[in-house]
Amino acid sequence: MNTYPSKLLEIAVNELAKLPGIGKKTALRLALYLLKRQIIEVEALGSAIIKLRQEIVYCENCFNISDGRNCSICSNPKRDHETVCVVETIRDVMAIENTGQYNGVYHVLGGIISPIEGIGPGDITIDQLLARVHGNAVREIILALPATIEGDTTNYYIYKRLSAFNIKMSTIARGISIGDDLEYTDEVTLGRSILNRTPYETQVSRK
Amino acid sequence: MNTYPSKLLEIAVNELAKLPGIGKKTALRLALYLLKRQIIEVEALGSAIIKLRQEIVYCENCFNISDGRNCSICSNPKRDHETVCVVETIRDVMAIENTGQYNGVYHVLGGIISPIEGIGPGDITIDQLLARVHGNAVREIILALPATIEGDTTNYYIYKRLSAFNIKMSTIARGISIGDDLEYTDEVTLGRSILNRTPYETQVSRK
Repeated sequence: MNTYPSKLLEIAVNELAKLPGIGKKTALRLALYLLKRQIIEVEALGSAIIKLRQEIVYCENCFNISDGRNCSICSNPKRDHETVCVVETIRDVMAIENTGQYNGVYHVLGGIISPIEGIGPGDITIDQLLARVHGNAVREIILALPATIEGDTTNYYIYKRLSAFNIKMSTIARGISIGDDLEYTDEVTLGRSILNRTPYETQVSRK
Repeated sequence: MNTYPSKLLEIAVNELAKLPGIGKKTALRLALYLLKRQIIEVEALGSAIIKLRQEIVYCENCFNISDGRNCSICSNPKRDHETVCVVETIRDVMAIENTGQYNGVYHVLGGIISPIEGIGPGDITIDQLLARVHGNAVREIILALPATIEGDTTNYYIYKRLSAFNIKMSTIARGISIGDDLEYTDEVTLGRSILNRTPYETQVSRK
């Protein structure tokens, strides 16, 4: 699509097409859809986007996004503040929260160490994690980073930096997904799941 | 995704998820992407959307979208104003313009007659088309509506209403797409392309 009947339409399409996964054709479809909506609805969308970016703050403690200086998790006295789950992104916080299985707090790194992408330990919130451990009573660190080389590198780096402290450290379990067939599982996952086998009693006692 | 760490994020995700083809998961991905962008970029997107809807006008003549009272096509003296191509939507105008094969003007109906969806002749710009034909020197009407029952109904309705005028009327050619194999073409299209076969001389003379 090269010719737009209106400059306003062209600008809107170009802006929408900058979003990830949205090409020029989809952007045009979205723009023409918005033209058919009520003005008030389109204003709600536009201002929600702008307000989100302008007014969002990050929790000073865990770097989760927040509406105030501290996020709802960090300011909740019912959460276990001695257990800190270290994740890469805000999305990971939301995913773990949705399981309803975790009652500790989080630390969002905002990335993982990746020499290829030029991300070093100084570019993510590892120093802030250390300061947290230093200043507060932290009993356990759960590393919930991606199961990639970068994730493993970051795990190891954090492990080394925190080795001076008397803290229990663990990574989340890797294994075969619940409901998955053994024969369709990749060898690396299957291999790891055998190495990291769980004693049967612990499973029985959980029920 | 049920729990959002921020009200601002929740509002933005809900607004984005109202767009066609964008679910809650994609909306969250888009919102988190916007959070990483510069404020100025996000403001550009938000205001482009709002401005589009607030300031867009429709051409008084052909109902194409426009930046002024008359669209760039209707106000172009180099276009053939005696040939009017009738289309359903603005998207069709853009598609035909992109071919570079048409030098006439357009008339955007804004829909087609569909009793099932409750769209009658009064809901689309057929009266305005008649007024145009009445007031101006129109030599030819090209009907470029969808090849559906609704499109055929609308074609026939316009044909009947315009039969009192001495105007050449045509529909765009239906047939096998350039480059398509005969054996994979559906029977209706193949049947129509045989019925509406084109004299070979007209094709030779075009070259």
